[in-house]
Amino acid sequence: MTKKIYEYELDEAFEIYLLIKSADVRLAKNNKPFIAFTFQDRSGQIDGKFWDAKEDEINRFQAGTVVKVSGKRELYQNNPQLRITKMRIAHENEAVAPEHFIERAPLRTEEMVEEINRVLFEITSAPINRIVRYILNKYQKAFFDFPAAKRHHHAFAGGLSYHTVSILRLAETIAKNYTGINHSLLYGGIILHDIGKTIELTGALSTEYTLKGNLIGHIVLVDEEITKACEALKIEEDTEDVILLKHVVLAHHGKLEFGSPVVPHLLEAEIIHHLDNLDASINMIDTAIQRTKPGEFSERVFGLGNRNFYKPSELVEPDSK
Amino acid sequence: MTKKIYEYELDEAFEIYLLIKSADVRLAKNNKPFIAFTFQDRSGQIDGKFWDAKEDEINRFQAGTVVKVSGKRELYQNNPQLRITKMRIAHENEAVAPEHFIERAPLRTEEMVEEINRVLFEITSAPINRIVRYILNKYQKAFFDFPAAKRHHHAFAGGLSYHTVSILRLAETIAKNYTGINHSLLYGGIILHDIGKTIELTGALSTEYTLKGNLIGHIVLVDEEITKACEALKIEEDTEDVILLKHVVLAHHGKLEFGSPVVPHLLEAEIIHHLDNLDASINMIDTAIQRTKPGEFSERVFGLGNRNFYKPSELVEPDSK
Amino acid sequence: MTKKIYEYELDEAFEIYLLIKSADVRLAKNNKPFIAFTFQDRSGQIDGKFWDAKEDEINRFQAGTVVKVSGKRELYQNNPQLRITKMRIAHENEAVAPEHFIERAPLRTEEMVEEINRVLFEITSAPINRIVRYILNKYQKAFFDFPAAKRHHHAFAGGLSYHTVSILRLAETIAKNYTGINHSLLYGGIILHDIGKTIELTGALSTEYTLKGNLIGHIVLVDEEITKACEALKIEEDTEDVILLKHVVLAHHGKLEFGSPVVPHLLEAEIIHHLDNLDASINMIDTAIQRTKPGEFSERVFGLGNRNFYKPSELVEPDSK
Amino acid sequence: MTKKIYEYELDEAFEIYLLIKSADVRLAKNNKPFIAFTFQDRSGQIDGKFWDAKEDEINRFQAGTVVKVSGKRELYQNNPQLRITKMRIAHENEAVAPEHFIERAPLRTEEMVEEINRVLFEITSAPINRIVRYILNKYQKAFFDFPAAKRHHHAFAGGLSYHTVSILRLAETIAKNYTGINHSLLYGGIILHDIGKTIELTGALSTEYTLKGNLIGHIVLVDEEITKACEALKIEEDTEDVILLKHVVLAHHGKLEFGSPVVPHLLEAEIIHHLDNLDASINMIDTAIQRTKPGEFSERVFGLGNRNFYKPSELVEPDSK
Amino acid sequence: MTKKIYEYELDEAFEIYLLIKSADVRLAKNNKPFIAFTFQDRSGQIDGKFWDAKEDEINRFQAGTVVKVSGKRELYQNNPQLRITKMRIAHENEAVAPEHFIERAPLRTEEMVEEINRVLFEITSAPINRIVRYILNKYQKAFFDFPAAKRHHHAFAGGLSYHTVSILRLAETIAKNYTGINHSLLYGGIILHDIGKTIELTGALSTEYTLKGNLIGHIVLVDEEITKACEALKIEEDTEDVILLKHVVLAHHGKLEFGSPVVPHLLEAEIIHHLDNLDASINMIDTAIQRTKPGEFSERVFGLGNRNFYKPSELVEPDSK
Amino acid sequence: MTKKIYEYELDEAFEIYLLIKSADVRLAKNNKPFIAFTFQDRSGQIDGKFWDAKEDEINRFQAGTVVKVSGKRELYQNNPQLRITKMRIAHENEAVAPEHFIERAPLRTEEMVEEINRVLFEITSAPINRIVRYILNKYQKAFFDFPAAKRHHHAFAGGLSYHTVSILRLAETIAKNYTGINHSLLYGGIILHDIGKTIELTGALSTEYTLKGNLIGHIVLVDEEITKACEALKIEEDTEDVILLKHVVLAHHGKLEFGSPVVPHLLEAEIIHHLDNLDASINMIDTAIQRTKPGEFSERVFGLGNRNFYKPSELVEPDSK
Repeated sequence: MTKKIYEYELDEAFEIYLLIKSADVRLAKNNKPFIAFTFQDRSGQIDGKFWDAKEDEINRFQAGTVVKVSGKRELYQNNPQLRITKMRIAHENEAVAPEHFIERAPLRTEEMVEEINRVLFEITSAPINRIVRYILNKYQKAFFDFPAAKRHHHAFAGGLSYHTVSILRLAETIAKNYTGINHSLLYGGIILHDIGKTIELTGALSTEYTLKGNLIGHIVLVDEEITKACEALKIEEDTEDVILLKHVVLAHHGKLEFGSPVVPHLLEAEIIHHLDNLDASINMIDTAIQRTKPGEFSERVFGLGNRNFYKPSELVEPDSK
Repeated sequence: MTKKIYEYELDEAFEIYLLIKSADVRLAKNNKPFIAFTFQDRSGQIDGKFWDAKEDEINRFQAGTVVKVSGKRELYQNNPQLRITKMRIAHENEAVAPEHFIERAPLRTEEMVEEINRVLFEITSAPINRIVRYILNKYQKAFFDFPAAKRHHHAFAGGLSYHTVSILRLAETIAKNYTGINHSLLYGGIILHDIGKTIELTGALSTEYTLKGNLIGHIVLVDEEITKACEALKIEEDTEDVILLKHVVLAHHGKLEFGSPVVPHLLEAEIIHHLDNLDASINMIDTAIQRTKPGEFSERVFGLGNRNFYKPSELVEPDSK
Repeated sequence: MTKKIYEYELDEAFEIYLLIKSADVRLAKNNKPFIAFTFQDRSGQIDGKFWDAKEDEINRFQAGTVVKVSGKRELYQNNPQLRITKMRIAHENEAVAPEHFIERAPLRTEEMVEEINRVLFEITSAPINRIVRYILNKYQKAFFDFPAAKRHHHAFAGGLSYHTVSILRLAETIAKNYTGINHSLLYGGIILHDIGKTIELTGALSTEYTLKGNLIGHIVLVDEEITKACEALKIEEDTEDVILLKHVVLAHHGKLEFGSPVVPHLLEAEIIHHLDNLDASINMIDTAIQRTKPGEFSERVFGLGNRNFYKPSELVEPDSK
Repeated sequence: MTKKIYEYELDEAFEIYLLIKSADVRLAKNNKPFIAFTFQDRSGQIDGKFWDAKEDEINRFQAGTVVKVSGKRELYQNNPQLRITKMRIAHENEAVAPEHFIERAPLRTEEMVEEINRVLFEITSAPINRIVRYILNKYQKAFFDFPAAKRHHHAFAGGLSYHTVSILRLAETIAKNYTGINHSLLYGGIILHDIGKTIELTGALSTEYTLKGNLIGHIVLVDEEITKACEALKIEEDTEDVILLKHVVLAHHGKLEFGSPVVPHLLEAEIIHHLDNLDASINMIDTAIQRTKPGEFSERVFGLGNRNFYKPSELVEPDSK
Repeated sequence: MTKKIYEYELDEAFEIYLLIKSADVRLAKNNKPFIAFTFQDRSGQIDGKFWDAKEDEINRFQAGTVVKVSGKRELYQNNPQLRITKMRIAHENEAVAPEHFIERAPLRTEEMVEEINRVLFEITSAPINRIVRYILNKYQKAFFDFPAAKRHHHAFAGGLSYHTVSILRLAETIAKNYTGINHSLLYGGIILHDIGKTIELTGALSTEYTLKGNLIGHIVLVDEEITKACEALKIEEDTEDVILLKHVVLAHHGKLEFGSPVVPHLLEAEIIHHLDNLDASINMIDTAIQRTKPGEFSERVFGLGNRNFYKPSELVEPDSK
Repeated sequence: MTKKIYEYELDEAFEIYLLIKSADVRLAKNNKPFIAFTFQDRSGQIDGKFWDAKEDEINRFQAGTVVKVSGKRELYQNNPQLRITKMRIAHENEAVAPEHFIERAPLRTEEMVEEINRVLFEITSAPINRIVRYILNKYQKAFFDFPAAKRHHHAFAGGLSYHTVSILRLAETIAKNYTGINHSLLYGGIILHDIGKTIELTGALSTEYTLKGNLIGHIVLVDEEITKACEALKIEEDTEDVILLKHVVLAHHGKLEFGSPVVPHLLEAEIIHHLDNLDASINMIDTAIQRTKPGEFSERVFGLGNRNFYKPSELVEPDSK
């Protein structure tokens, strides 16, 4: 269908529909107002400035509106930027609903629900199974709607559940290939590990941290949820399975300096920490590589020690396409 | 009255009553069993080996027993050690109860109860006041009985409450001297900050970590207690005061790498972190200095970056004696 | 009286008197000169640009001049900035002396002199007492006039002595609550700990580092002053009290990586280090919080690991107002 | 069949065949010689001292000999130790060959050969395929015989190939679940990543570092092998595939401080680094857990930041047995 | 002769010939194109913007062209910047060849060749001597032409060989003053230590990293060259001298975190690491100091922990002029 | 002449004269006293235990006595140790004075005096020249007698001046090869840089730290000496040369975390830091290598990040013998 913004070449002229994600009015050095936009479509987000904005333009070009923009994508200090040459509100008969412009996980919600349900059957520990179902039920809507992070990785609608499902798939291979692993703990821990983000963040659109997110953090917020689930389900808090489940969730950042209040002291905690990291890394590199031309280096990825990544030249045929 | 073990000079011969804190039987290189003791009286703890132990000696010299020991205190690789020359069980008519040999906080429990009660009146925020009283009530006995740590600082019976009271006294000066401080948060946070140690540790005698202590840790354990208190008291969890109270407790180690899952984002959290550190440091240095001769350096203090501390020579008259 | 610049809301229009702290003329991209101002009044400092500056404006708007400015306070990349709409020199009959615009410590000099004098009586060690009085006398004027730092904390006229007095107050509580503390060393060390800043910095107005400040640093500069005081007062340099006094001053940054050439090996050195840190932290947070609206996070505080701080919403009533 | 040394309880008396791995004669404090042994059977290794050794005992009990030992396994400073009560050379008719006592990978060599051959077919890049086969061929014997490390992980005969095969299995799941991955690079890199250990180490028995291992290291040694393979196979060194293959091998330790001369700049390099880490971690934890009783913590694992790991109590039924 | 750009004072007007090193056309906020130039002459490089560029100006002012510029040198955010007031292409009869504008090492190539040849005679180990001559021969042209780094130190034509010669001079003093040093290893190691930069970088003009530079790095690239030299010269790779030579080259960054895959385990490796560092540091400080006025601090030097350096005031007479 | 202890092979029997450096009497596990000796001759120091010591042996074998010992040198946990088989006091007619057993710098004092005097003439700055001569004069005797450190490097009589002279030799090459260096500052700084060790340490025999050494440190102690020299010589302390001289001394450890209160901000300070490091490293490696057999690795060197160093096998002919 129509090309997305990141499917155009750099400096290639285009005319395209975009959703205004945010619109800040500021004063330029010539004392005239301009609008600092963030636009988005399903290929990603991009900033752009609209100079010499008139009163009515400021009123019309609000966040949440779909617009038709002529211009091109440039690089400004190595970051992509949209140079706007013309811009107008999309007409009603152009049939462009805002929800078509929001990046989404590549799996449909129903597929993810099904995958998670299948795994739930593998959780044979009664207390773990009941707690996981209880919390999943309580935050179900947000869990399948929220991104996995405000910015770094899986920062798109449905990213939280997509990240969870991706880890579960890897975990199934681990569970099959190694002995001595407690499947209930492994799968239960993975499903819950980031679900506190539904309390830490505000939602899929213009994602921000909540007060609880800033002052308590998603790791402890899940621990509280397990505590409350035990009270609600009349599960004895001192059951070893409950303590172990809390531990794998609390320890999943792997090191104190990454925000876990305890380091992994269980095989399953160590595995979850590794898989979480691995899936997030692949997602971040993949996002960066997709916006890079073959034979060139990507922009630097903040969440990966500011490294940039090389996209092999065309001659090297990636097997997986 | 009778001199304590650390009141004798190094290498000075003595005859003294001591409580056996622990007694491990091992095999020496000559294939004869020996007993590795840890003794204690109110001046502190000391290790000592009993060579060529006979069957009945092994049976009699059990942990929890009071004994009369002849010997002297030596330095072995810079650590104090007891050289035993003679040793027997204390007679019943010598009237030496085990509890007289356990190091205790220098304040009586009633004094500490009173000080804390006084401060509770300064907590004018209703939710904070109710939560603090609820948790204090629930763990009251342990709170006034437990040490503040297994080893590092305030490692004596009543150390947990004594450490808390010491910080409260400093906090009152802070509250008086600086403006803009929320007293409810400051005092409530201090009272709760280490109370999770009553769950993390096993008690005042032969203190060890519990499974919850190892896998969840006292910081998150308090957070869970606040969560449960809210449920029990029907306090809305999203009340800002509750979130702030949780934060000051969670952040009191000051840095992620010291085990806090969040860093301080409140003035009161920052203050509690500093005072906690300061009181613990003074206690550790004081303990080390007390066992050092004037004009010499103490043993190295593990909890303070392995530094040793100089005890000024007699000529310098400490004002506070 | 008249409102100060930080007492206005963001984006609220005002007409206000301000002192020009510095004025740099630069060329804009349109090749016309502009003036980059830093203004100040007692509520703090703020930058602002004056575009298309004419010859006579450049001549008139010099540092040290009081001006009447119309405009508003904005946020530019999260830092406060003054948008100037109109600006003129203050008329003589408007009676606005530059000294009314310099931020000052909240205590009057005489109060601080008195507090310090009172503490001097507690210094019973003759050599310490004489050395402290000698140095205090030598740098008296600057000590009560200088800020405690160029930027980070207590960066206002009188900040150095105010910081010192604040620490002394906390130290008195410490001295009362703990045993084994050498009061002479504690108080003497506190009074001298930062007095080298009178040599390290240039003064209260447009504070900069001196060559000695850059190449020797305030910590060693005090040590040199103690050395010279001993020579002048004929105090034997090898007196233990002198060595200890030097140590507490040299060690007050607590760690080598913070610029102390030795780490604390005395109880008093450790205490001074903690109190110095605590008072500076409270001051930095307090400054940041004062410019923040209830229910929001402050700007990030560079001196505190770039953390931002939450100002509780109105509902939480701070006790200390 | 017969129980292995780590299948006995602590302090349980046994009579057992063991291989002497090393035997050092030293002088005891009583001036009599003793032998410091390391024994091994397929359950692992253990140290033990033999006191008052006579001339002929010293001559008989050499490394490489199988002996029959009576004694028990103890803990000495938290490390396992063998207390020997009786010991003699195994008789010929007891039919105990040394090779029965060497720990081996749980997969037979043929199985591993087959798995690797299967993966080789997935390497569709001609230069990578040829280079990998060439090097594999050259070091084939050692590759299937060597351990993956002298001590830390997979420290048993065949450990190097077993570690490689384990990673390949995880990599196949990755290749299936994520798009944009170059399979040739991924599989080729994994097969070669540690093959330099066949040059770095001396072999499966009494493994030590070679001079090249100490001064060049296995990471650069593989790079040299690729360079030589290109010369031998007349593959142009500047082919992009060759450069990328070298990179994934050089970068597989992930960080400079872990000995990689470059950090990962390719998606495949990042993945190999993670999988290498994950498989090594699982192996180390598994080894520690196997020697631990349910409901207790293992010894500390040096290669994992000195953490210890909890073995859940019997009640928790591990799914995978 | 004619003054160079860094020989003019800040803000002093000049008319001067400069080589355009690079010229990027961008769009200004007023939507008119401007050219972002980097100019250079033998005193260094400087950026400058040319506003409102017309079509023909964009076509004429290309990289590699010599131009005559009127303007002045300014400081912009503490970095030097050229303000252009007039600019034209240099006339043919002005006789200004581009090569006169490239910064070069202060020694002529022939002098450096001679110095290195002299040292080659001191390399008495046959394998080391042959390998060094072979590689030097192979990369001779680039070795005397390339800079030692893209930016940090010796970033001028011939910088690589000049850096090498400077270290050799220091090494000769070391070799004379200390015993037990293997001269072949020391000198051979120094000559080869950075020669991989001829593969890592693209050349003396507009220096960039090559793909091999980014993905393999100059340290391993030399190791590969030694490997290939051995094959070509039929030198047995396991000769100890070869292993040692590889080691000193691989270890010359001194620490893993600086990119060496092994740390120095030879006296000669440690010495080379120190001398490399020392020479680079002197060069970086010297460059910064030359652009600083007496009595002032230089700009901050990124490669030296962002420190700035003081240039003593005129009164202090440097001995070496 | 007679062979020294480190000239014998490991485990080779010998009969040899040694100086008792220290002699501690302790109780063995069999309850009999033993003496823990440190012996020394000019080849180095070694520990050894003397079991079952009788009363008169304890009285006779005091520190400072020369004894004749039969025994051999062993390795105990990789550290050299002397196994004593026979031992008696040296007879008077054996003519063995204690001073013959103290390790000394390889240069005679007069040679070092002469070298330093020659360099003093190169210090053309009057204030620096006068200060350096004044301090050198004041501490002359100790300067040529003390070691450069208690343990790490140049830990022998005369080591302090020998280390200084070694650095001066390197500095002369630097001064000749690079421009822009202030020779007065360079040479003056080197001569003074470690002279504070004459106050920090107790002397050449059984070197310990003094109280000033522990609490002030040699770096600040030199700074104090410069301050006092200025007062004595009536040199204005604010002379730039004096400030710069202080700086190069204060900054010579190069980083705050190594104990310098300021980092180098002068070219000469940076050079002194590097040369100090280089000379100390060579000395430490040389000491370790001398005790190692060709083709083996030395013991680990604590002062060099616990690295061990390889001594090339005989085949590699070191040039410098």
